[in-house]
Amino acid sequence: MAVYTDVTEEDLCALLAAYDVGTLLSYKGIAEGVENSNYLLRTSADTFILTLYEKRVNPDDLPFFLGLMDHLAANGLTCPQPIRRRDGAALSTLAGRPAALISFLDGAWPRKPTAAHCREVGRALARMHLAGEGFALHRENALSVEGWRPLWNQASDRADEVEPGLGAEIEAELTRLEAAWPAPPSGDASADALPAGIIHADLFPDNVFFIGERLSGLIDFYFACNDLLAYDLGIALNAWCFEADGAFNLTKGMALLDGYQSRRPLTPAESDVLPLLARGAALRFLLTRLYDWLATPPGALVVKKDPLEYLRKLRFHQGVQNASGYGLRPAAKSRQAQGTSSS
Amino acid sequence: MAVYTDVTEEDLCALLAAYDVGTLLSYKGIAEGVENSNYLLRTSADTFILTLYEKRVNPDDLPFFLGLMDHLAANGLTCPQPIRRRDGAALSTLAGRPAALISFLDGAWPRKPTAAHCREVGRALARMHLAGEGFALHRENALSVEGWRPLWNQASDRADEVEPGLGAEIEAELTRLEAAWPAPPSGDASADALPAGIIHADLFPDNVFFIGERLSGLIDFYFACNDLLAYDLGIALNAWCFEADGAFNLTKGMALLDGYQSRRPLTPAESDVLPLLARGAALRFLLTRLYDWLATPPGALVVKKDPLEYLRKLRFHQGVQNASGYGLRPAAKSRQAQGTSSS
Repeated sequence: MAVYTDVTEEDLCALLAAYDVGTLLSYKGIAEGVENSNYLLRTSADTFILTLYEKRVNPDDLPFFLGLMDHLAANGLTCPQPIRRRDGAALSTLAGRPAALISFLDGAWPRKPTAAHCREVGRALARMHLAGEGFALHRENALSVEGWRPLWNQASDRADEVEPGLGAEIEAELTRLEAAWPAPPSGDASADALPAGIIHADLFPDNVFFIGERLSGLIDFYFACNDLLAYDLGIALNAWCFEADGAFNLTKGMALLDGYQSRRPLTPAESDVLPLLARGAALRFLLTRLYDWLATPPGALVVKKDPLEYLRKLRFHQGVQNASGYGLRPAAKSRQAQGTSSS
Repeated sequence: MAVYTDVTEEDLCALLAAYDVGTLLSYKGIAEGVENSNYLLRTSADTFILTLYEKRVNPDDLPFFLGLMDHLAANGLTCPQPIRRRDGAALSTLAGRPAALISFLDGAWPRKPTAAHCREVGRALARMHLAGEGFALHRENALSVEGWRPLWNQASDRADEVEPGLGAEIEAELTRLEAAWPAPPSGDASADALPAGIIHADLFPDNVFFIGERLSGLIDFYFACNDLLAYDLGIALNAWCFEADGAFNLTKGMALLDGYQSRRPLTPAESDVLPLLARGAALRFLLTRLYDWLATPPGALVVKKDPLEYLRKLRFHQGVQNASGYGLRPAAKSRQAQGTSSS
């Protein structure tokens, strides 16, 4: 939950005058997003989200994020879209921070995801990967394998404060993953090259909205970047398919992967590497949570997320032999099981 | 800012089925109110606030609070109103807590109040005092003079941690105020009896909404109670008429009091006692802030408000000789200065 920056009505009205969005009726800070300040705005014309980008977001990345929302929406993905100012710009400045006015997306994120939600999420993730094709901008994934050791170096000294032995366990895992991680896509189209493109990189339940059982859209593209598409699936398996007690729910994994393959079947090389990528995704969230856990001062206004949740997930992945351990079925079979052609 | 209790969509939809308010489109936790959890809800019919009452609110008080909103709105005050369920009840249960669905009030609270805002607030406060007449329920003010010493007893040991000498200063002031405080209204209508009735008791800027310069309504009646009407004015002087540097702004004081008297002129007895009541109001907020400051654990998700802001205000009040020190003018003169008859 987060509202880091308060905004005066005077400043907000001055900002809105640069847009064609009617006059201000109300604005309320909302408790969503941990990186930025978000307001829900009502004007005489419509409802909007106003985002103020706080210091953890690099302003140089904003054209990528905002341009991506435009590109994805133009290619049929339901997601919020930046509202353009009268002068055509999508970015403004408010209270000394970069700010964007974004269309409001109805729906609520599922607090208790079901297999039906997971299937929808798989479909939407594949749809996003396809819709990302042709996006002109590029953003490296700062939180992929090359980013893990620098992060680890800042947390390793104190890791055992969180759990005795954690330091050695992470060190060994990181070393293994660095050695085994697939090389970045070289641009050649050889048979075993892994497909790369735009990934969401943070597709947790709070970033997927539903109205009833129907997925109404994806939000929060502020970790989006270029990387292996199957790595996004690895992240989603971690984010959606474990129960609160740490158990992997194979039914949910199967639903998520079936959903994904109904729109974009995995290549054999992707299927082979999925367990490794899911394992890397668990380490990535373990490392960032550990770093935040150790770096967050006690009085800070954020909820600290437990790093050990991801240690438990990592240990599960270490025991997975191949992608069928997550419920992956050949695409043809998964389509058959769903009783639908790819729609 | 606060969302203490998260709500699942399933539970929320089940709740909404008891009301005639359409189907759920979205709900977002909002960063307003420090006592309760609040969600902004959009349904196919309208926009609402959903409030979950957390443990600092006594459930026995809820019929008073919700009934008061109904009563005030029925008597012409613009304020949120509880939405009735199909079975006629205004109170529900959600996530194990008492919960109410409340109408949404457009407007934004003024971050930088001007004298024009203060005049409107004065008018609205008088209007609320008049609209409260005839409300059948009664609620003692737990935070009036009888409540201060029990609160002080829980904080006095550690007061000097906040500022050396604070303990002795508060002790002396509390003793003086206990001796000088007007007796509770006895029900007789003698000439010098102080008018009592329903007071808001927490009319700070974040509880008053404006659209532009126009006051659009009052919110947050969860401290409302029966007490001296002029005490509410003492609270409002503290809440609205001091600058960030601690200086009392006489222009704002005059505007607030003129605005109030344009709808409800003070009696001579009220004018006489106003400095004492404003001083008591400063002590009341000093004590509750001090208590919260000392009691709040370092990791808690609330912003701690500085008690010393109210020590500075208290010291100002100690030097005020009579109500003209706040800008009080005879009601006839204030009406003349405004160039309007009471409207």
